[in-house]
Amino acid sequence: MIKAGVIGATGYAGQQLVYLLKYHKEVEIIFLSSNSYSGKKYSDVYTNYYGIIDNVLVSTEEALEKYDEIDVLFLALPHGKSIELVKKAVDKGVKVIDLGADYRLDSKEEFEKWYQIEHPYESLLKESEYALVELKDKESIKNSKVIANPGCYPTATLLGIAPLLKKKFIDTKNIIVDAKSGISGAGRGIDIYKLYCEATENVKAYKVASHRHTAEIEQEMSKLANKDIKITFTPTLIPMSRGILSTIYANLKINKTKQELLEIYKEFYKENKFVRIREIDVQTKDVKRTNYCDITINIDNRTNRVIITSVIDNIVKGAAGQAIQNMNVLFDLEENMGIENISIYI
Amino acid sequence: MIKAGVIGATGYAGQQLVYLLKYHKEVEIIFLSSNSYSGKKYSDVYTNYYGIIDNVLVSTEEALEKYDEIDVLFLALPHGKSIELVKKAVDKGVKVIDLGADYRLDSKEEFEKWYQIEHPYESLLKESEYALVELKDKESIKNSKVIANPGCYPTATLLGIAPLLKKKFIDTKNIIVDAKSGISGAGRGIDIYKLYCEATENVKAYKVASHRHTAEIEQEMSKLANKDIKITFTPTLIPMSRGILSTIYANLKINKTKQELLEIYKEFYKENKFVRIREIDVQTKDVKRTNYCDITINIDNRTNRVIITSVIDNIVKGAAGQAIQNMNVLFDLEENMGIENISIYI
Amino acid sequence: MIKAGVIGATGYAGQQLVYLLKYHKEVEIIFLSSNSYSGKKYSDVYTNYYGIIDNVLVSTEEALEKYDEIDVLFLALPHGKSIELVKKAVDKGVKVIDLGADYRLDSKEEFEKWYQIEHPYESLLKESEYALVELKDKESIKNSKVIANPGCYPTATLLGIAPLLKKKFIDTKNIIVDAKSGISGAGRGIDIYKLYCEATENVKAYKVASHRHTAEIEQEMSKLANKDIKITFTPTLIPMSRGILSTIYANLKINKTKQELLEIYKEFYKENKFVRIREIDVQTKDVKRTNYCDITINIDNRTNRVIITSVIDNIVKGAAGQAIQNMNVLFDLEENMGIENISIYI
Amino acid sequence: MIKAGVIGATGYAGQQLVYLLKYHKEVEIIFLSSNSYSGKKYSDVYTNYYGIIDNVLVSTEEALEKYDEIDVLFLALPHGKSIELVKKAVDKGVKVIDLGADYRLDSKEEFEKWYQIEHPYESLLKESEYALVELKDKESIKNSKVIANPGCYPTATLLGIAPLLKKKFIDTKNIIVDAKSGISGAGRGIDIYKLYCEATENVKAYKVASHRHTAEIEQEMSKLANKDIKITFTPTLIPMSRGILSTIYANLKINKTKQELLEIYKEFYKENKFVRIREIDVQTKDVKRTNYCDITINIDNRTNRVIITSVIDNIVKGAAGQAIQNMNVLFDLEENMGIENISIYI
Repeated sequence: MIKAGVIGATGYAGQQLVYLLKYHKEVEIIFLSSNSYSGKKYSDVYTNYYGIIDNVLVSTEEALEKYDEIDVLFLALPHGKSIELVKKAVDKGVKVIDLGADYRLDSKEEFEKWYQIEHPYESLLKESEYALVELKDKESIKNSKVIANPGCYPTATLLGIAPLLKKKFIDTKNIIVDAKSGISGAGRGIDIYKLYCEATENVKAYKVASHRHTAEIEQEMSKLANKDIKITFTPTLIPMSRGILSTIYANLKINKTKQELLEIYKEFYKENKFVRIREIDVQTKDVKRTNYCDITINIDNRTNRVIITSVIDNIVKGAAGQAIQNMNVLFDLEENMGIENISIYI
Repeated sequence: MIKAGVIGATGYAGQQLVYLLKYHKEVEIIFLSSNSYSGKKYSDVYTNYYGIIDNVLVSTEEALEKYDEIDVLFLALPHGKSIELVKKAVDKGVKVIDLGADYRLDSKEEFEKWYQIEHPYESLLKESEYALVELKDKESIKNSKVIANPGCYPTATLLGIAPLLKKKFIDTKNIIVDAKSGISGAGRGIDIYKLYCEATENVKAYKVASHRHTAEIEQEMSKLANKDIKITFTPTLIPMSRGILSTIYANLKINKTKQELLEIYKEFYKENKFVRIREIDVQTKDVKRTNYCDITINIDNRTNRVIITSVIDNIVKGAAGQAIQNMNVLFDLEENMGIENISIYI
Repeated sequence: MIKAGVIGATGYAGQQLVYLLKYHKEVEIIFLSSNSYSGKKYSDVYTNYYGIIDNVLVSTEEALEKYDEIDVLFLALPHGKSIELVKKAVDKGVKVIDLGADYRLDSKEEFEKWYQIEHPYESLLKESEYALVELKDKESIKNSKVIANPGCYPTATLLGIAPLLKKKFIDTKNIIVDAKSGISGAGRGIDIYKLYCEATENVKAYKVASHRHTAEIEQEMSKLANKDIKITFTPTLIPMSRGILSTIYANLKINKTKQELLEIYKEFYKENKFVRIREIDVQTKDVKRTNYCDITINIDNRTNRVIITSVIDNIVKGAAGQAIQNMNVLFDLEENMGIENISIYI
Repeated sequence: MIKAGVIGATGYAGQQLVYLLKYHKEVEIIFLSSNSYSGKKYSDVYTNYYGIIDNVLVSTEEALEKYDEIDVLFLALPHGKSIELVKKAVDKGVKVIDLGADYRLDSKEEFEKWYQIEHPYESLLKESEYALVELKDKESIKNSKVIANPGCYPTATLLGIAPLLKKKFIDTKNIIVDAKSGISGAGRGIDIYKLYCEATENVKAYKVASHRHTAEIEQEMSKLANKDIKITFTPTLIPMSRGILSTIYANLKINKTKQELLEIYKEFYKENKFVRIREIDVQTKDVKRTNYCDITINIDNRTNRVIITSVIDNIVKGAAGQAIQNMNVLFDLEENMGIENISIYI
C-alpha cells in the first residue's frame, strides 16, 4: 500500500483527490491537512462524506511531523503556498505531487515575473517534472522527486494542440486559445462574484491576455514545437460547476482534411486511454467527473485555419484525476487505476 | 399610434417583442400570429401574461388578411419562412421589420449558398436594409421598405469590431470570432439537447466554421473595411438562458494603448446611448434584459493582438429590442422609447 | 415629486428598490446609503447600472444628516439594524417604509423572543403598520408613521390563506406551511453555502419549525381569524435566484368544490390587481420580477384537505415592489404606479 | 457472473442502471434494449460512454428472443409498458426487477383506478414484491419472481416515516407529504416545460393531491402501521437535475425530544448502511449520485408536530441504485456491491 498525505484537502481539487484516494485500492491515507478546518472531521466540512471519510483534519504543522510516515505527499494549495512545503518533503525523501503552480515553470525568472513571488529553490524548480503523462516520458516521471501536476487550462489546451505542433502543421505565430471554465476552477474561497445569484446566468472573459496559465502553456508548447512560442490566451467564466472547453485556433501550413487530421490524432494518442478523438462536437458533459480528454478538429477551408476543441473536467483530468494518474505512473501501477471511469451522464 | 402586427409571436424573440410592444406608448397591437398556437390566448401560451396580454392568436392566413390595418409588420420566424410574407406586405405598402435572416444578405447567391433555399425576390433582397442602427445611416433606415434586423451574434460582433475596421487599425486577414450564447438563442423548438438535464452543466462549440451568421458578419465587416473580409467564427452554447459574449481577436497594425483605444471607441459611439464602452471586464449580466451593448478592449502586448469583448442580450439587443429601436427610427420617435432600460441585476 | 432616501441600498432588496425608484415618475432619489460601499458609485457596486445610476453612496451618518431633505425613508437592512434609524426618522417627521423585520411584530415580548434583541421603542412598535395592502385598510396605511413592509414568506402565505381564515372555512389547529425560496432570499452576504458550486443542484429545508417569519405569519393569521393561531412553518432553499412558492395545508370544515373556492377567492381579491387567482398550477416563473401574487387552490377529497399554492417574487412583491406599493398608497398615487409589470417570461 | 438484460436502457433511470451494471463485478450485460434507438450504439445515444459502452441497442422484439440467455431482466419503462414483458419473463423463469410502476400495487382495483389501465395478471401483481430492502424481509425478496422496485417519492418518504409508523408514535390521520424533485424525475421525453429556458429559475407544485405515487405510499404506510392510512401528497418540481427532498408532517402522540427520536431512528436502521440518520439539516447534495438516504427529524414543540426530512438521489436510491441493491439481495451478494459510493460533492 502506498502511504499518502494530502495538504490542502478541503479545496475543490483537494476534496476530489481525497475521494479518489479513498477508493484507490493501493492507497492508504495517512493524513488529511487543512489550515482552515484543522481539528474538524472531514465529514463536517464535506457533509456528504458522513460515515465514509471521517478523518480529523490536521494543521500544516502536524502534517509536517508526519512526513516520515508517508511515501507520497499531495499538495493542493493556492500558488506560493507550496514552495517551502515541497522542499521540506524532498529533503525527507518523500515523493511529491503538487497540484499547484509552484513547480510548474522551469525558469525562476518566468515564475517570478508571472507570480510576483520570489522562488528560492531554483534547482528544484528545474528538476521538477511538468507531468502531463500523455506528452511526457514516463520514465522521467517515475524518476522525478517533484511532480508538477499541470494546470487545468494547460491540460486541455496542450493535449488539444500537441500533435499539430509536433508535426509542424501550423504557423506558430498566430495561435489563439479561447478557453471556457466552470466556476469551481476559481476555488472554494468566498468572493461575491461566485455567489449563486451573481454567477448564474452570466458569462465573462477575465484576465484577458494576462492569465498566469499562459506561462506554462507557452513553455510546454515551445518544447513540443522546439521553438519559442507566444500565444494569446483568454479564459472565460461560465455558469456551471465543472468543466473546461478549450477552443484553439491556428493557421494551417499544410493541406489535410478533417478526416486525415483525426486519423493523425488517433495515431498520436493510440497508447493513451484517457484521450478520446471524437468525430462529433465535443462537450464537457461527456467528460464530466472523469479523467478523459475529448478532442475534435474542424477546418475552416475558407481561411485555411484549424479549430481544435478539447474538453476535460477541470477538477479531475485538470487536477485530482491527473494527480492520481501521475501517482500511478510514479509507483508503476496501472495508469488508470482508481480513475477508470468515475461518473455518469447527468 | 403605430398599428403593429406580429407574425411568429410565440417564439422567444417573438414573446420579447410582444412584451415590448405592449408597453410601448406609441404602439397599438393589431394582431399577434402563431401557427402553432392559433386560436389560443396569448396568456395560455405564456402563462405569465394572464390578465395582461390575453389577445387570441391568429393564423398566418388570418394575419395576411389584416395587412391593410397595420402600419408595420414584425416577423420573428425561422429562416425561409418570411420570404413570401415579407413580399406580400411590401406589395401592400406595409413597412416590414424582419427579425429573421431572409432579407439580411445582399446577394442572392450568398443567401442560397448559406441557407440552401432559393430566394425569388432578388431586387427586394438588394433593397432591404441591414439595420444595425449604430453603424448605419438613419435616413436610409427611415426610407427602407424592409428592415432586416441583424442576427444576435452579428450584432455583438459588428458593434465590437466596427471602430477598428473603420480606422484600419487591424490586419483583416486574421480575424477570429469566438462567441458564446445562452440557450434561448436556439429558440423554443423542442430538441433533446435543450432539455434542462442535458443543457445544464454543459458547454460545447457547435457548427464550427459553418454557422450561417458568418455570412452576414463578413458582409458587414467588408462594408466597414471597404474590402473583402473572411473570418473564422465559432459559436459556443453555454448553460444559461440569455446573453451573448463575443470575443474578437485581431492583429494590430498600429501602436496604441488600451486607454487610447477606449477613447477612440467612446468617440466613435458618442451619439449612441445603447453602446457602453467599459473599462472593466464586460459581462452578460450587465446587459441582461436590456438593449445595451457593453464593449471593452484588451491588448496583448506580447503578441500585439487586440481582444475585444462585447456583450448583449441576444433576445433584446440581438432581436426584439433592436427591432423596436429600428421601429423608433423608422417612425421618427425617440430612439430609446420603450427600450430605455427594462430590467435589473439578478 | 416625492423625495426619497434609501438606507441599505446595496443588498438584493435594496438594489431592486433603487431600480424601481429610479424609474418611478413621481420620485426623486435624494440619497442612497450603504455602509459597506459608502464613497463608491452605485454603478461600481452594481455594474449593470453604469451610466444609469451613478449616485455616490453615502454612509449611514451622512444619510442621517439628510433626513430633513426627504419625505420618505426606505430601509432595507438586516434585523436589528433599523430600530434606531427608524426612531430618528419618525422624530424628524419623516415617513418610514422599513423592508426589514424590526417593526413588524406588535408585541415587544414576541419580538425579543424571536429576534433575541431588545426593542426599546414599544409604543412605536405598536403604532407601526404591518402593511400588506391587500389585507389592510388603506386609510390606516396612509396615516401611519412607520410602515412595516411584510416579509417575503409571510406575504405569499398570508395572501394565500386569508380568504379561508376570514370565512372560517378551515380548522385553525392544523395549518402547515411548506415554503420554497430562491437563494436571493438569504441576501448578498457571502457565506459558503451560497457559492454557486455549493448552491446549485441542491435543495434543503432549514430552520425547520424555528424560522423567524413564523412570528409574523401567526400574528397576522390570528388577526384574520380573530383567534390565536399556531402553525408549523418549514422554509426550503432551492437552487434559483428569485421566487417563493408557499404551499399551505389545512383541513376543510366546509364542503366546497375547487371551482367554488376559486370564485370565492376571485371575489375576495376583486379590487386587488396584484393578486391573480389561477385555474392552472401556479409557478414562480409567472410572477418573476413582477409585483403579482398568483394563487391556486386544490382540494384533496380523499382527506378533505385544502392545498393552497401561492407564488411571488421574493424581492419584488416580497420586498421592494411591495414597498413601492405601500409608498403609492401612502402618498395617494395609483397603487400600481412604477410596478405595473416589470418583466418577461425568460 | 449474473447475466442481465435491460429493457428501457436509454431513459435517465435506464442509463444510470446500465452504468452501474457495467461496473458491477458480478454482472455481465447480455443485451440493452430501447425501442427509440434500436440499432444504434449506446454511445451514440449517451455520447459520454464512447469507448466504454458501445453495445448496439436491440428492439423489444430482439430482447424477447434473448430471455433464454439471461438470469435477470431489468425494465425501466413508463407505466403500462412492462405488464406483458414481465409476464413473459416470468413464464420463462427469468427473474425480473421492474423499475416501473406496473407491479408495485397489490390490488388490481387500485392499479386500475390510479393508472387507468387494465391489469390482466392479478395473481402476479399480488405475488410481486414491493422491494424496499430496508423495510422488507430479505428472504421474501430472494424468493420473489418479480421485484417491483419502489418509486422515487415513495422511497424517500417511506424510509423517512417508517419508524414512527411502526412504533405508533403519530396520529395517522394527519400525515402530509410535501416532496421536491429535480427534473430528471420527469424522464427524458421531450416536453416544452422541461426545456432549459423554461425549467430553470422556476418552481411549481404539480398533480397536487392526485399524483400516482400516492397509491404506493399509502399501501406501504398502511402495512407499516397495520391500519388504513390516507395521506395528502404534493410533489414539487425544482430547477435541478437530480435529487428528492421529502418533507413529512405528522402530529405526535408521544412526548420525545429530537435527540430521543434520532436515537430511535439510528437503532431502527442500524443494519442498513444506506440509511444515514443526521443531526444536521439534510440536503440532496449529500446523497447525489449515491445510494444513500439521509434523514433528520425536527419537532415543532409549539404544535407538537414532527417534521421529517428525507433526501435521496431519485435516479440512484430512487431507481437504478435500488434496483442493483435488490439484485444483490436476490443473488445473495454483498448488499452494497457496485453501489457503495459512486460520487462526489460537486
